[in-house]
Amino acid sequence: MGLIVQKFGGSSVADADKLRNVARIITETYRRGHKVVVVLSAQGDTTDDLIAKAQEINRRPSKREMDMLLSTGEQISCSLCAMAIEAMGYPVVSLTGWQAGVQSNSAYGNARIKRVDTQRILNELDRRCIVIVTGFQGINKYGDITTLGRGGSDTSAVALAASLHADLCQIYTDVDGVYTADPRLVPQAHKLAEITFDEMLELATLGAQVLHNRSVEMAKRYNVNLEVLSSFSGNPGTQVKEVVKTMEKSHVSGIAKDKNIARLALVDLADEPGIAFRIFSLLSKNNINVDIILQSIGRGDKKDISFTVAKSDAEAAKKILEENRDYIGFNSIDVNENVAKVSIVGAGMINNPGVAAGMFEALFSAGINIHMISTSEIKVSVLVDLEDADRAVQVTHNKFFNDPAMQNN
Amino acid sequence: MGLIVQKFGGSSVADADKLRNVARIITETYRRGHKVVVVLSAQGDTTDDLIAKAQEINRRPSKREMDMLLSTGEQISCSLCAMAIEAMGYPVVSLTGWQAGVQSNSAYGNARIKRVDTQRILNELDRRCIVIVTGFQGINKYGDITTLGRGGSDTSAVALAASLHADLCQIYTDVDGVYTADPRLVPQAHKLAEITFDEMLELATLGAQVLHNRSVEMAKRYNVNLEVLSSFSGNPGTQVKEVVKTMEKSHVSGIAKDKNIARLALVDLADEPGIAFRIFSLLSKNNINVDIILQSIGRGDKKDISFTVAKSDAEAAKKILEENRDYIGFNSIDVNENVAKVSIVGAGMINNPGVAAGMFEALFSAGINIHMISTSEIKVSVLVDLEDADRAVQVTHNKFFNDPAMQNN
Repeated sequence: MGLIVQKFGGSSVADADKLRNVARIITETYRRGHKVVVVLSAQGDTTDDLIAKAQEINRRPSKREMDMLLSTGEQISCSLCAMAIEAMGYPVVSLTGWQAGVQSNSAYGNARIKRVDTQRILNELDRRCIVIVTGFQGINKYGDITTLGRGGSDTSAVALAASLHADLCQIYTDVDGVYTADPRLVPQAHKLAEITFDEMLELATLGAQVLHNRSVEMAKRYNVNLEVLSSFSGNPGTQVKEVVKTMEKSHVSGIAKDKNIARLALVDLADEPGIAFRIFSLLSKNNINVDIILQSIGRGDKKDISFTVAKSDAEAAKKILEENRDYIGFNSIDVNENVAKVSIVGAGMINNPGVAAGMFEALFSAGINIHMISTSEIKVSVLVDLEDADRAVQVTHNKFFNDPAMQNN
Repeated sequence: MGLIVQKFGGSSVADADKLRNVARIITETYRRGHKVVVVLSAQGDTTDDLIAKAQEINRRPSKREMDMLLSTGEQISCSLCAMAIEAMGYPVVSLTGWQAGVQSNSAYGNARIKRVDTQRILNELDRRCIVIVTGFQGINKYGDITTLGRGGSDTSAVALAASLHADLCQIYTDVDGVYTADPRLVPQAHKLAEITFDEMLELATLGAQVLHNRSVEMAKRYNVNLEVLSSFSGNPGTQVKEVVKTMEKSHVSGIAKDKNIARLALVDLADEPGIAFRIFSLLSKNNINVDIILQSIGRGDKKDISFTVAKSDAEAAKKILEENRDYIGFNSIDVNENVAKVSIVGAGMINNPGVAAGMFEALFSAGINIHMISTSEIKVSVLVDLEDADRAVQVTHNKFFNDPAMQNN
């Protein structure tokens, strides 16, 4: 008996049958005596359809009006889900972001949750109602509707779980947990029973696309117990926790791939202090996030700097740097969008230099060239050609999960 | 220079082109120096589509959840209209019912506006913004979304005009004003330049379908200057006012027809006091509105009572009366749904007995049988067979608008 927050994504609520399936999962949880708060995304393609409608009228609508428009998607899925639960005879109420007390900052289109005023939800739970809350949205200090940007509904769910001190936050998706690699790519990939927040964070950031990193960061900060599971299979999912109790055999938890990446190279920079600062403060001021950075060792008085950004930011980054060519001082700038990042993630990695070496060996054996390398406490990332990316995931997975020599490394 | 409230119905905002047309009308008004508050309905078939989605999931959803669902329709049309105005370079903001301060009672699906807290709208107008407000919806004391039922967007517009002390409230529809009869039925029908609230109220109630009676009642109570006009033609519309200055030639302003009507007849009631009270208090308790009532003169110790109700209430009314047969005491009950009400409306009618006589003469000459007659200060209604209804409108219109003998009556 506890309080459980359950989040269902757009594909889980896409039509009437799927909504009824979701209603079954919710009411089963309720019947076991739990208090249940549900967070929903918009149905299937609703958000894309609304964006298309807006584009037909205005190529560059204000973000405030876009949020006004897009927030209707979750309101529709939530009221329909409430009706499905009503039809099954359970007490239920749907709430919009503002009704649920989700207070955000004013960054329309990409707002951050500041706090959740839980009074309304708690009142409804006291009345023994199942509470359905619109994900992805909040209200700002002006009383305007905001949306939370990518991964917003996951973040809504974790924020509600944290504010309500929920015992568990279940994220239902179309996959049934976190795998050692993308199962569509690596048939031998297996589901992890448990994973730490830090590992999940690396996997989420690296493009494993199971949970958005914002939601994992928030879950880690407020120590919210997360579970990733499927709304279709009924199988147990993957628990995401601060500390994982059962030791996994391998030090590597998973392999992730990110194709949404581009590499920029600035050639023939002056080898003097402050150059890197100029480049990256310029990009930062323009809200362009830089991921891996590689600086060559100076040759005489010249050096090169390469770095990766999201593919969608590549052109903008190039333009900003070219406009500041004199200020920075470089000869040429090169953009390569045919790259991908492949990463191994695992909490035990830092104390096992053999892990990174194992990855490099696997890639070398497969004849895959490595352009850049980046490491952290719990991950090793390499930049490879886009065409090598899938094979890189496969051979790395083979190395760590199928090679007996690595199992106890 | 004043404050103008403009309301556009669902057909006026049905697609991107129509929204752009509406945006042109709004911004032209703004460019003439007016403050502009706009009220919109949902686009075209949106509301019907949402109802169909709900029906697929739950045949009898709660009214609260239906309001949560349906209110998204206006939110979509308002944000899209704001985007169209943004694209034309004007300052604009869209507001939901709750953002616009539209406070209603708690009757989900058929709520009444209690008051409008205009602070937010006034702030936006002070910033010289065009303000777009969702029609048809409000918020109740629980912080839940309500919808206002039939004609709700007209009512929203008039309530805003009253609260903001607007100089004019323009109701844009797909007809370009109030006609002496339905022009599709009577080609000679002509548009009225002016009409009084009372006349409009009778015409609206009687099914002229230009303005909903709730909105006209409210406009009369708060003396809001109304104008009914077309969003497509650009022609001047019909002014609805407390007092009409220019005298119309005829004492009759218009002819209306209502097919959504059924007649019930209770046969062989005891001719004693209190019977009518029993019947109509029973119906009133069950929220069934009765329109025309006709009581026969007693024959010995028996009498009959006939009355009309909305067609949708006919079966329910019959059931209630049959369940109370002993309490009321009648022999049989007869329901006739093949009837229609045809009415002539005009402020000068009460002092001109020749008007009613003229209508009866026209119907008699056309061989149309009259089942019931009801009169008020400004109207005469007759109940005729459904198949005679269109012809009754035509011959009555001919009598009052084409017969030289009646022009100065």
